[in-house]
Amino acid sequence: MRKIEIYGLEGIPEIKPGDDLSEIIIEAVEKNGLTIKDDDIFVIAQKIVSKSENRIVDLNDVIPSEESIKIAKITDKDPRLVELILRESKRIVKLSKGHIIVETKHGLVCANAGIDKSNVGNVEEIDKVLLLPDDPDISAKRIKEAIEKKTGARIGVIISDTYGRMLREGQINYAIGASGVRIFRDYRNKKDRYGYVLQVKNIAEAEEVACAAELVIGQADESIPVALVRGLKCEETTLNAKALNMPEEKWLFK
Amino acid sequence: MRKIEIYGLEGIPEIKPGDDLSEIIIEAVEKNGLTIKDDDIFVIAQKIVSKSENRIVDLNDVIPSEESIKIAKITDKDPRLVELILRESKRIVKLSKGHIIVETKHGLVCANAGIDKSNVGNVEEIDKVLLLPDDPDISAKRIKEAIEKKTGARIGVIISDTYGRMLREGQINYAIGASGVRIFRDYRNKKDRYGYVLQVKNIAEAEEVACAAELVIGQADESIPVALVRGLKCEETTLNAKALNMPEEKWLFK
Repeated sequence: MRKIEIYGLEGIPEIKPGDDLSEIIIEAVEKNGLTIKDDDIFVIAQKIVSKSENRIVDLNDVIPSEESIKIAKITDKDPRLVELILRESKRIVKLSKGHIIVETKHGLVCANAGIDKSNVGNVEEIDKVLLLPDDPDISAKRIKEAIEKKTGARIGVIISDTYGRMLREGQINYAIGASGVRIFRDYRNKKDRYGYVLQVKNIAEAEEVACAAELVIGQADESIPVALVRGLKCEETTLNAKALNMPEEKWLFK
Repeated sequence: MRKIEIYGLEGIPEIKPGDDLSEIIIEAVEKNGLTIKDDDIFVIAQKIVSKSENRIVDLNDVIPSEESIKIAKITDKDPRLVELILRESKRIVKLSKGHIIVETKHGLVCANAGIDKSNVGNVEEIDKVLLLPDDPDISAKRIKEAIEKKTGARIGVIISDTYGRMLREGQINYAIGASGVRIFRDYRNKKDRYGYVLQVKNIAEAEEVACAAELVIGQADESIPVALVRGLKCEETTLNAKALNMPEEKWLFK
């Protein structure tokens, strides 16, 4: 029977800049009574990757440009935060009161360039914010290769973050970085069980794995930033999570 | 340790109009060596629900209206299929060559009102298409209550279908019907581990469960139309899958 198991790794300590996530994940797997095997996929919350890469910025160190001050007024946001959002972005997709939707320099369309205030540090340090990793695909590759080197297992890594959707309520988890995992499960030109040739089916498997992992990761004070997903096949692919970004010419609404 | 298991139920027979899915799912669980427990969630591919409800239409029985013929020309589609799409929809969201995006009468925004040609019947019956269930939330509730009555367990049911997204490549699984499951995991006004009050986090849990289940369901000739998801909490809620449809006034692009 086809079976997938998703484990929420407990006991991962507070991550600090410079921490070696591969080492921390390997230790956490052991502490949770598991052994890393071929085809294990680790889904890692973006926050701990960003922290380990020291992507923390103190807003007090940011001097907003005139453009940032203008956009801050339109959107009712902190101009220093707006300045960081613009620095992390290729372009603004949509502005409205309370909302800045951008295309990040990685090609991801999301609110606030994925910059987050929650789970950064203690509440007195409220001016600290956390940027996305500089390149989440490269971060994923680095962590994957380090775990593989230390364990000898052939594994996959997805770096994930939760964002809203265009036409659906609530947020879901997105694969924003990936290495060693299948990004798409492509059925196009394959036959269904009756011989009908499928025209469009191309499942964003890496995104579904991120969603599955979020069910154990949680968002508030659960302190489970890494999930182990077991039961899928890892795959060396030339694609990474950037392949999930739809190019603008294919957007339904522009 | 937090753990979720996802089982793909094998051996489910070809579903025919009038079949009792609750009975078929209970039998499949037994055949797969499992026993239904409290908090088990069944994710059921829309196709077998539609078939059991006899939502199969022969295009040869459909007479397209003038509007359908016009839209068929714009979109390069079969006017009889367009006629069915319009009958299943509240309104057209976007038309282009090869694409009809509508808001279905259930409030779901998707291509072709979710009408599908694949996996309907043998390839000689190529003119047969399958409509979405008349009300997938009611279908989910009916199946849930029937399984609960027969087993005594308190379970959840999600009816799912795969659709494309607005700004992301590939399709993922959506929860289009739900009963007895948590739709959202709402963190708004809760504190993170540092005491910071979360502003927007409201996770579309039912959608993530659908995505997780798709990893074992598959799309082509796998013949696994039902997944059992174990490890979450079921919840009687006043919400159902319709709560995932974002009202138009909140759409980013109109």
